[in-house]
Formats: sequence, structure tokens, C-alpha cells
Amino acid sequence: MPATTWSRHHILSLADFTVTEYDTVLQTAASFREVLSRRTKKVPTLQGQVVANLFFEPSTRTRSSFEIAAKRLSADTLNFASSTSSITKGETILDTAKTYLAMGTDIMVIRHKQAGVPQAIAQEMDRLGVKVSVLNAGDGQHEHPSQGLLDLFTICSLLEPSHPRLELLKGKKIAIVGDILHSRVARSNIWSLTATDTELHLAAPPTLLPKLFADCGQDRPGKLFLHWNLESALEGADFVMTLRLQKERMTAHLLPSLREYHHLFGITRSKLQLCKSHVKVLHPGPVNRGVEISSDLMDDPEFSLIQNQVTSGVAVRMALLYLIGSGKIS
Amino acid sequence: MPATTWSRHHILSLADFTVTEYDTVLQTAASFREVLSRRTKKVPTLQGQVVANLFFEPSTRTRSSFEIAAKRLSADTLNFASSTSSITKGETILDTAKTYLAMGTDIMVIRHKQAGVPQAIAQEMDRLGVKVSVLNAGDGQHEHPSQGLLDLFTICSLLEPSHPRLELLKGKKIAIVGDILHSRVARSNIWSLTATDTELHLAAPPTLLPKLFADCGQDRPGKLFLHWNLESALEGADFVMTLRLQKERMTAHLLPSLREYHHLFGITRSKLQLCKSHVKVLHPGPVNRGVEISSDLMDDPEFSLIQNQVTSGVAVRMALLYLIGSGKIS
Amino acid sequence: MPATTWSRHHILSLADFTVTEYDTVLQTAASFREVLSRRTKKVPTLQGQVVANLFFEPSTRTRSSFEIAAKRLSADTLNFASSTSSITKGETILDTAKTYLAMGTDIMVIRHKQAGVPQAIAQEMDRLGVKVSVLNAGDGQHEHPSQGLLDLFTICSLLEPSHPRLELLKGKKIAIVGDILHSRVARSNIWSLTATDTELHLAAPPTLLPKLFADCGQDRPGKLFLHWNLESALEGADFVMTLRLQKERMTAHLLPSLREYHHLFGITRSKLQLCKSHVKVLHPGPVNRGVEISSDLMDDPEFSLIQNQVTSGVAVRMALLYLIGSGKIS
Repeated sequence: MPATTWSRHHILSLADFTVTEYDTVLQTAASFREVLSRRTKKVPTLQGQVVANLFFEPSTRTRSSFEIAAKRLSADTLNFASSTSSITKGETILDTAKTYLAMGTDIMVIRHKQAGVPQAIAQEMDRLGVKVSVLNAGDGQHEHPSQGLLDLFTICSLLEPSHPRLELLKGKKIAIVGDILHSRVARSNIWSLTATDTELHLAAPPTLLPKLFADCGQDRPGKLFLHWNLESALEGADFVMTLRLQKERMTAHLLPSLREYHHLFGITRSKLQLCKSHVKVLHPGPVNRGVEISSDLMDDPEFSLIQNQVTSGVAVRMALLYLIGSGKIS
Repeated sequence: MPATTWSRHHILSLADFTVTEYDTVLQTAASFREVLSRRTKKVPTLQGQVVANLFFEPSTRTRSSFEIAAKRLSADTLNFASSTSSITKGETILDTAKTYLAMGTDIMVIRHKQAGVPQAIAQEMDRLGVKVSVLNAGDGQHEHPSQGLLDLFTICSLLEPSHPRLELLKGKKIAIVGDILHSRVARSNIWSLTATDTELHLAAPPTLLPKLFADCGQDRPGKLFLHWNLESALEGADFVMTLRLQKERMTAHLLPSLREYHHLFGITRSKLQLCKSHVKVLHPGPVNRGVEISSDLMDDPEFSLIQNQVTSGVAVRMALLYLIGSGKIS
Repeated sequence: MPATTWSRHHILSLADFTVTEYDTVLQTAASFREVLSRRTKKVPTLQGQVVANLFFEPSTRTRSSFEIAAKRLSADTLNFASSTSSITKGETILDTAKTYLAMGTDIMVIRHKQAGVPQAIAQEMDRLGVKVSVLNAGDGQHEHPSQGLLDLFTICSLLEPSHPRLELLKGKKIAIVGDILHSRVARSNIWSLTATDTELHLAAPPTLLPKLFADCGQDRPGKLFLHWNLESALEGADFVMTLRLQKERMTAHLLPSLREYHHLFGITRSKLQLCKSHVKVLHPGPVNRGVEISSDLMDDPEFSLIQNQVTSGVAVRMALLYLIGSGKIS
């Protein structure tokens, strides 16, 4: 592992991440990616520590990724899924968190459909003066920092595998396409991708991309551009990130039909002609094939980084657990 | 670990626990609490053993506590939750237990909404002449022995942290308040808290505390008192245990309203004035804030032992798994 | 472990298993059964590997058996249950599998209500050129190879515990009784039990045993016989395997009543008089007592191998994970 001066105790948002912090995460994740290529993909770093996955909103993909990351660091894991749980009967979320604290949890990975819950729990832990760390695994439409970091790691690792770092993004053009209004993934990515001199272009139908997004990141070195059509966002892009479209948006009258959405904003081989020739496509998953992205493009390793993102996810989450976990125990 | 002459193979009820057994559990739990304060909170005691959590009634809190205890003893754990399970389709509970036995389970931790199920399974295991141990994690309204023991450990540890033992309770006055009729926690606590010369006072509305409770523990050295009002139970008390109130009791016409219940039997700062000045409050959780106990009192570390109880739970369950587990393998 | 020349990468079906492969599984399982009798029932074989149980159809029994087998080989396990999962929202099954691949899964244990799903996933993995192995844990009404192998191991181990092998079945008469039409267990067993010179007799009501079953295994050395009554199948049998009866079959008008089914095809002590005196009875579980088999017979260790089957299941699944896992990592 790289020598590090990591001091952040919780990982709740990317809004105030520094360049040094981004680079430390990227470099630490690169070290763990190397561990994952060994025959025995396990290190004893967090032996005897407990990582509790408190998923008040169900998720298999993110929970499995954190679980595998924790196990590869030799931590013990506990899974809490509120749908199958009786713990919250009449109990507040803070009380549930305090129960897991009192059981000896060292790191809490928290997902909740309401924005701000991981922050509130972290605050309470700090108020109590305890050492437990909180990791936001997605809160409402607010943030999903580990997803933002794994997307960043995926891109930077492609640009320079042995030494991924933020400055590699300088001068690149990146497009984020889709349901930006409701996406916590987009919000975390806006922070990370505007942390250096990158051109970040957001594209969506007006119902999914209100003008106020122009305000995001206006104090950041990167430049943010809004588009209500796909074409101008794609032009000359190095990377295109598409977002998952919740089908519930249709019933809320925000979109006419999946077919029309795909026609206008779905990423296809022909639309990619507008981008740089080496363009790559990302998607946080799970993908609705033929909606956000055409099926053949998704499976084309020349363009799709979707599998890389999942693999990066484990390395990045190992890095995050390591950085906040080893800070805590040393 | 203390040298021990433990011979009990299953832990099903506290009704026939001896003073020596209580003291062995308390002293063993104290040793494990010391392990939990180390950097690596893990011991190899049960390595290669399988602890199966067979929860026919859903529970996250107790299941997580047993799971974390088992993992800290290096056991492998299996979780069975009947709500998400197809195993019981047409199969008897004894057959389900025998299936987990045949898979190589060493210790079965069993919760069931029907009283007597863990006992029936333990009997069947004995009849079969196998070494598997059964631990009752709550059966109907009958008993919840590990909760009774962790409450005892919490109180005795407060009185003398380095050497918790039953005789520390001599001469103390303890009140149990709330839905005693339906509470397996109360039943287990009545056994443990009357095992020495303690004054045990039960307080509840008449619908939740029938007179027959006076018969409980009448052959025990402790004295048992019944109150249909809170005040006389609290007077001069050293410890107050409140019980969780199932909201279903309202619909069964056993209580007028939550508000009135809180007014009459809820524990508040002002009502505690009746107790000794050093009084402490316990609750098995999860808590309905503002019903069984006022919200500010619950969060006041000067009075509330609720977080200590959760922490004690892990140490006590490690002790129980160790005592029945190491008996089995030696 | 025995020296082995195992080359099969996925275990999807027993249709093309060779005698050498059967014998390697049987002999490897016998070695692991020895491990399971030790005090520390654990070997480091698959340390650092990830076994993902992807159960798109719920199952506690088979999932627990695979989980315990994986843990005893020191693998890390991940459980995916589609009922509680959001991962498949709009995502194809192949995409879900590829996500677990990208997270670093080494072995996927897959159950799906649709026949052919594990095969499709295995094909996709091979197409991608990745090393991950797929193990079919039951696909629709097609196959359940690990169950077929554990039944085989149970029988051969009884005949010669120290050296179970296929040729021990030569000259034996085995009856499979019950809902053969809908049973993936029966299909896997038909392959394994006709792999040598065994007389295999199928018995069921005509609605549950169409004539086309006579075609199965017609190119195999064993002989296959169909019976629409129980008696002729049981006559002189060495082993009787009964199958689980899904109660849904009643509503589909395939059976008149459970009572009549038990009268005609349920295995009882008196019906066993037709068999050899040393006859043994098997059932894949969970059992409907008094339907497929009489309750007292099920509990009689002189006749019933049902618990042995469950124990064999862990040893056989350890063998399968070991054979495909160690092939992969060497």
C-alpha cells in the first residue's frame, strides 16, 4: 500500500474531496487491483474488524461489492436488509445504527432512500466520540461516492494503468447522459469529474435536467455544460457515461416512452461516431438493454467499460475500507 | 478463560440455572469483554465449527448479535430465516433441524414464535445421541435466556467490572416495568434476578400483569412483588428494566392508548426521582421512544444502560457459545 | 485428496459423465468425509476464492449445503437470492452473472426455475474466455447434478465405505418412485444410475411418468424399466428412491388426492417387504411425512438413508468445488 496521510474518517460525499484525496484513493485502489490478480486474493488488513452493511434500501449489486471487498481485507461482515428485518419496528434509524455500534461494528456501510441519513449517522457517531466510520453507499438522490470514485478509477486506470491520477483527466471531454435529475451517481460524478480541468457535459431531456444543474460545480476548475439534446454533448467526447433509467419515471409523466427515450438519448454505435474514435462508454448498472444503450454496444469490449467498472468497484471499495479502517485502528 | 466445570449441553431456560452456572457465565463473559477491547477482536476457539442461526421468527438484532459472537470465536455461521425460506414447505420443524444436524452443524441457535420449540429440538438431538447443542434465542412468550443473562451481566458488571457475580445483587431492589404478560424477556429475568436475595418488583397495568405471576419464583430466595401502579415499584429501586411494548396489544384492547400508557408506566426523569439516586435503566430494545421511556432519558448515559446491554450481549453470547461449544469438542 | 486428472470445468449435467469422472467424485468426496470427522472440519483449499450462490429460485437446503461446503474449503461466500434482490430489475440473467464475474467470483453455483440457465451462463463465460466455473444447483425440470452425485455417493458409500465406486452398483436393482415427470432429481439420477449395469425401475402414476421416459438412457449399459404401479418396481429392489411430491400437482389435476397417492405409491414398511431384506430408502427432501413415505419408516435408521444423504451432500459438494476450483487455480 502507498504511504498515506489519509485523515478523513467518514466518506459521505465527494463535494469537498481534495485532489490529494482523489489521488490517494486511486493509487490505493491500484495496489488492491494487483492483490486481486494474485492466486490468493486476500490480505489480512482488517482481520478482527466488523464491517456492517446497513442497507435500509435494498441493493444486491452494491452490497455484494462491499461484502466481497470487506472479505478480501479479512474483515467479518454483517448484512442488514431492512426489508427482511424487524429491527426497525418503531425504532429510529439512529437507534438502529447505535445498536450496531454497541455490538462492536467498526465500519458502517449505509444505504437509505432518504438523502442525508449516512451524514446524520456519522454526525451522531462523532457526537458520541466513537471511532466507528460511516461510508455512504447511496442516499436518496444525493450522493453515491464509492460509485463516483470507481467511475473515476475506471477512467484513470484506462489512461495510465500503473499510475491512475486525477490530472490524467485534464483536457478530456466527458459526457453524462440520462436521468441526471434523480441520479445520486450523477451528483457524485459531477464533483469528481470537475475536480480538475475537464469539460463535463450533461445531456438529458429538459424534464430530467433542470437549469439549476448549471450551478453545480461552478466554483470548480472544471467546466460544466448542459444540453437538452444528445448530439452536442457527444461531439468530441473521450468518455460517455449513461445513467440507469428508472422505469417509474414514465408513470410520473417525465418521459413519453422508453422507445422514444432510446431514440433520442440511447447510446448506439452510430451516435458514438460523433465522439473521439477512442471513446469509451460507462454505465453504473444494472442496464436496461436497448434503453440507455444498445445491446450490441454494451457487449463490445472496444467501447464498453461496464465490466471494468464492476471490477474497479471491488478495488475502490477495498481502498476506501482500508483508508478509513486503518486510520481507525492505528 | 476461567477454568470451568461447565456441564450443561443446551441453554434453553434459566429456570434451573445454578448460582455456579450464573457465575461461570458472568466470569466467562468478562473475559471475552476483554478480548473485544483488543485491536484484533477475534479468538480461534470455535474454528472449523458451524453455528447455525435458525430463526423461524424474524429478528435482526438478536441474530446479528449471535452472528458477530460466533464470528469472533472464528466459527462459520449459517443463517436460516423462515420468511425467505422454502425449506419448511411441508417439512416439520424437527426435520428442518435434523437436516442442519446432518449438514454438520455444531450449535443451533433457535428462535420460534411458539414456546417449547428449542426444547423439542434439543430433546430430539439427545434422543438421537448426537453432540449438537441447542441455544434458545427466544421461544414464544416463554423464555429468552441469553437476554436474561446479558441483563444480569450488564448489572453485575456495573457493580464490579472486574469480577461480576450473582451475589453482587444481594439486597438490591430491581423493578421490571411493562408488558410482563407477553414478555419472554421478563420470564427469563424473573429467574435470574430471584436467584439470590434480591427484591424483584413487577409493575404493569392489570391486563398485562395477571396475579398468577406471584407464583413465579416462589421457591426462590429472592422476593417477588406485584404492582398495578408504577410508583410503588420504583420507590428506592437500584435498577429499572422497562420492556418493549408491542403495538399489537392496543388492537387487542389490553391498553387504552400509547399516550396513556406512557403517562402511567413510561419511565421519565421525574419518575426516577422515586428511585435511588444512582438508579440505572435497562431496555431489551428496540425502543419505542416516548412510549416505554422518554427520549431524553434514553440518551442520558448517566441513567441509561441500553447501549451497555447490546455490548454485553455479544460478550455473553460468546461466553455461551464457548461454554457449550468447548464442552462439546473436548 | 486423490491424484486426479479432472478436466471438466463446469458441472451442468450428468448426461455425459464418464465412469472415471463418477469415480473421481466418489473418491474425492470420501476423502472430504474424512475431513468432516476431524475436530477442525476445515481445509485451506479454496482460501481467497469466492463462491457465489446465485439462487434465482429460492432454496435454503441446497444453498446452505453449498455454503457450508464452500466455507469448509475456506472459500469466501456470497449469497444472492432473487426474491430479495433488486439487481435483476430490467437486467438480463447473463448480465447479472457477468456482474458477479467482474466482481471476482471464481465459482458460480446457480439455481433457476428455467431449464438451461446454468448452461447458458457457462457458455457465455467460455465465450468470454474467463476461468470462472459454473455449477448447476438445479435448473427447472432438467437436472440437479450435485443431488444425483450425492445420492450415488450415499449408496456406494454404504456398499463399501472406504472405496465408493460406480462398479459397486453392478447387478443391483434400484427403484425411483414418484413424480418423475417434473423431477430434475430423477433426471440426474437416471443418468448416474444407468452408467453401469444396474437395473433401474421407475414407478409412478401414468400422469407423472409418460412413456417417453423409456427413451432415456437407452444408449447406456444399464437397463431402464417403467412401471405404472409400485409393486413390480419394488420387487427384489436393493434401493428405493422416493421423490418429493409438489402439492401443486393436485391442483393441476395430475393426482386425485394425497391420501390416494400415499395409498398407491407411498413407501411403507409393509410395501418394503417386496424388496430385498437389506433394502434402503432415499428421499431428496424436504419430505412430506405420510405422503411419499410413512413417518415411522422415515425415522427408522435400519431403512432410511435420508440423513446420510444430507451429510453426503456436504462432502460431495466439497468434492465438486475442489475439483473445478483446483483445476482453475493450478
